[in-house]
Amino acid sequence: MQRGVSTFRVKLVSFTGDGEKVVAIAAKMSRSRKGWEHHEKNMTKEEMETWIKDSILHGYWSVLEHSVYTFSIEGISRVASHQLVRHRIASYTQMSHRFAKPKDEFYQPVTPSWRDEDEFRKAYEDSYRHYLDLLQSGVPEEDARYVLPNGVNTNLVVTMNARELYNFFGLRLCSRAQWEIRKVAWLMLEEVRRVHPILFRFAGPNCVIHDNFVRPEDDPVTLDQEKEFVSARCIEGVPRQGIWKCIQNSRTVIEKVK
Amino acid sequence: MQRGVSTFRVKLVSFTGDGEKVVAIAAKMSRSRKGWEHHEKNMTKEEMETWIKDSILHGYWSVLEHSVYTFSIEGISRVASHQLVRHRIASYTQMSHRFAKPKDEFYQPVTPSWRDEDEFRKAYEDSYRHYLDLLQSGVPEEDARYVLPNGVNTNLVVTMNARELYNFFGLRLCSRAQWEIRKVAWLMLEEVRRVHPILFRFAGPNCVIHDNFVRPEDDPVTLDQEKEFVSARCIEGVPRQGIWKCIQNSRTVIEKVK
Amino acid sequence: MQRGVSTFRVKLVSFTGDGEKVVAIAAKMSRSRKGWEHHEKNMTKEEMETWIKDSILHGYWSVLEHSVYTFSIEGISRVASHQLVRHRIASYTQMSHRFAKPKDEFYQPVTPSWRDEDEFRKAYEDSYRHYLDLLQSGVPEEDARYVLPNGVNTNLVVTMNARELYNFFGLRLCSRAQWEIRKVAWLMLEEVRRVHPILFRFAGPNCVIHDNFVRPEDDPVTLDQEKEFVSARCIEGVPRQGIWKCIQNSRTVIEKVK
Amino acid sequence: MQRGVSTFRVKLVSFTGDGEKVVAIAAKMSRSRKGWEHHEKNMTKEEMETWIKDSILHGYWSVLEHSVYTFSIEGISRVASHQLVRHRIASYTQMSHRFAKPKDEFYQPVTPSWRDEDEFRKAYEDSYRHYLDLLQSGVPEEDARYVLPNGVNTNLVVTMNARELYNFFGLRLCSRAQWEIRKVAWLMLEEVRRVHPILFRFAGPNCVIHDNFVRPEDDPVTLDQEKEFVSARCIEGVPRQGIWKCIQNSRTVIEKVK
Repeated sequence: MQRGVSTFRVKLVSFTGDGEKVVAIAAKMSRSRKGWEHHEKNMTKEEMETWIKDSILHGYWSVLEHSVYTFSIEGISRVASHQLVRHRIASYTQMSHRFAKPKDEFYQPVTPSWRDEDEFRKAYEDSYRHYLDLLQSGVPEEDARYVLPNGVNTNLVVTMNARELYNFFGLRLCSRAQWEIRKVAWLMLEEVRRVHPILFRFAGPNCVIHDNFVRPEDDPVTLDQEKEFVSARCIEGVPRQGIWKCIQNSRTVIEKVK
Repeated sequence: MQRGVSTFRVKLVSFTGDGEKVVAIAAKMSRSRKGWEHHEKNMTKEEMETWIKDSILHGYWSVLEHSVYTFSIEGISRVASHQLVRHRIASYTQMSHRFAKPKDEFYQPVTPSWRDEDEFRKAYEDSYRHYLDLLQSGVPEEDARYVLPNGVNTNLVVTMNARELYNFFGLRLCSRAQWEIRKVAWLMLEEVRRVHPILFRFAGPNCVIHDNFVRPEDDPVTLDQEKEFVSARCIEGVPRQGIWKCIQNSRTVIEKVK
Repeated sequence: MQRGVSTFRVKLVSFTGDGEKVVAIAAKMSRSRKGWEHHEKNMTKEEMETWIKDSILHGYWSVLEHSVYTFSIEGISRVASHQLVRHRIASYTQMSHRFAKPKDEFYQPVTPSWRDEDEFRKAYEDSYRHYLDLLQSGVPEEDARYVLPNGVNTNLVVTMNARELYNFFGLRLCSRAQWEIRKVAWLMLEEVRRVHPILFRFAGPNCVIHDNFVRPEDDPVTLDQEKEFVSARCIEGVPRQGIWKCIQNSRTVIEKVK
Repeated sequence: MQRGVSTFRVKLVSFTGDGEKVVAIAAKMSRSRKGWEHHEKNMTKEEMETWIKDSILHGYWSVLEHSVYTFSIEGISRVASHQLVRHRIASYTQMSHRFAKPKDEFYQPVTPSWRDEDEFRKAYEDSYRHYLDLLQSGVPEEDARYVLPNGVNTNLVVTMNARELYNFFGLRLCSRAQWEIRKVAWLMLEEVRRVHPILFRFAGPNCVIHDNFVRPEDDPVTLDQEKEFVSARCIEGVPRQGIWKCIQNSRTVIEKVK
């Protein structure tokens, strides 16, 4: 075990370059008799924004599937990766601890709490010592890894489309989500908003999504524009007045890694 | 009903630009402890080809999901579109005959047979006349369309990843597939081989896929290289000797539209 | 074409017999350290109801996937079947018009409108005549069917789990859904409520689902109990005051087939 | 940590009672114009067997989706559960270590190797001690669990349909699969063959599945009937002559838990 720079990283490594246009044209084609070429030539940016906005606010999610994003998520724990892969409408490739030993500078388990950092460090060192002993005595790595801690770091390549991202964000940006997967979610949101701000303008935890389904439709709410909620409460039970504060609390997890 | 230029068209309108690289790096990352950046910098084209080839020939399909393709498929019949949307691991946006009337130059039903073209034309004209009459007498278009023929043309935007495309090709390039969906499949194959020849080098009907699973692995077969099959028969019952001829028969459907 | 008794039928032919118990135990096991056997022995009916209710009202949908339903849906049109199979998280087996000719008493296209029944009947007869002529002149059935009307009848076996059914009902019980698929949905709802009333107590169009997500949680709304909505509008734009009337309008489609 | 009876258990807790009949009727209905009731009344057991056999040997997998199975899998490690949930066409409910502390008699991590049992035990005790210390000092359980070993036990409720089970078995009965998930797979196979012997007669690792796709079709191979392979090798590279021995090796993992 070697103390190194944390490898925790969420990076958008590939995506549908013209994804916003693709989504908007697809939405329009469901109502039009004309073909792709016609719309590609004639659709203005304003029109594009309108088709995307209307699709999201009316729950016409399927068109969002045409824009796809690939992330490299590195240095997260197996606690977080186990939660991540539960999202089934996505593609995953995970670093295998059967074939790639998390040794030396590659052993960088995630420490969840700062106050008790020492206790975690000691636990991680003990586990690592047992792991090395087992490898030493000839136990194959696929078995030795059973003694590694749940916090052990792993890497994944993850591909999700914009619809699944909206669903993922709805659940995992919520303050109820476990802090590490939440951190991953907020970082993923930053990445996709950077490249496709129109498409992800209405993304947020489920409180935001649901409120847009039931509030006056010419007055949508976004994470950037904190309007009063019309919902009596969010799905987790937080009352109307407390929701914005709750979202801010959730987001603080992102500060801690910067 | 107006006789116009056939609108039958299969066009790749968007795709993961660096999809071959993404697939190869993902495959490598499952065996490596290093991150995306390292592999992106260091992977040679030869290495990329090897990772892709090995993934396909050993059935490690999941890495192929990271490369994604969007097609505009225009002017196919609802016979074909109904079959197409049965592939559930894909995204579809279809022109709605509830909202977009297939009238005038937009009524171009697909004629399946050349010998009896006249009989089809007459049938299509009769249906069209009834359709117009119903619209005329105030029947809403969502109901009037019940009398339109199954051959009536429609447009779809379709997104599939490379893994699902391999599966789709396996089934729909086969001579047993219905001719129209087969035509769509062969045209889609042309499109993706044009942009990602390495990734789709081993694509083909299931006879080819299965043979590569069971034949000596340093001797794979492709549509371009007609090696003798080791399989006793294909999954549809065609014996070893007849398979290549069967594939050629299947492919002829593509000539007829060019 | 022979006038016969309409074959339109939606029948639940198989399902998870103890599905309500399975869902409730699964929900409980996510919070408990004890095994299946323990919960199976000790869970009371009241407890079961509470676990199911809480799961639905808090959007903990995944546990509902453990209860599964198979329907035989017979005599619907290809207009409706094409919409049905767009729901991808489900299993379908459809009568093939490639292999099973819809002739004689099996040709019973669906008539969408009663006022203009005659016009539809004439259209359907014309199509049928052309179909027979094509078969007569040796056109294979897989091609001849291109002239059959969209309204032509077909049969499907459909399997969906309770979670997907909630999603399906949310969309297809809505008055905005096309009338035939809506009729199918209301009939499916009747079938599953008959066998699993607890599990489907909160099912309804999306207006109902969304309202339960945002209203005071000790006061849920169901189709049987028409409480005032807290939502300003439904996702389709109907204002609070009009929603219950809209639901009733939607449901009338079911009366017409009884 | 308390030494107790191992809780490792794979139990079929619910399934489609008449699943074999449902699959066979669905298969037949795709080729027939008649409805469910007719086939239910008239299908003999021999006919049922034939429809199922033909569907599997010709890769007509979709009909197998209509028969569904729910397992309670208890006492497996998080190493195994992480692999299990990677199968996306399935439903999972997992015991949460966020809410259910694996303490006292509920801490029973899985020991992968018998020769070095002591070393594993010591490692597991050290981890447990650190876990308790963290809880003691007020660290919430959702964070304390980061120091628990990967081998820590968990419970899941898993629902898969027969098609996905064939796919799961294809991959996880293979001797290349990690031993614990392999043990789970062999035990699941025993469970489903007990209740539906006809439906799972052709299940096996991919070597068996692939050979049935390419061998003379009147001569299928099953795990019970060890015919000579026609494949030159399995997909993992084992040559024809070694395959049956390899399958037997794979299966030994099941003996060790009985």
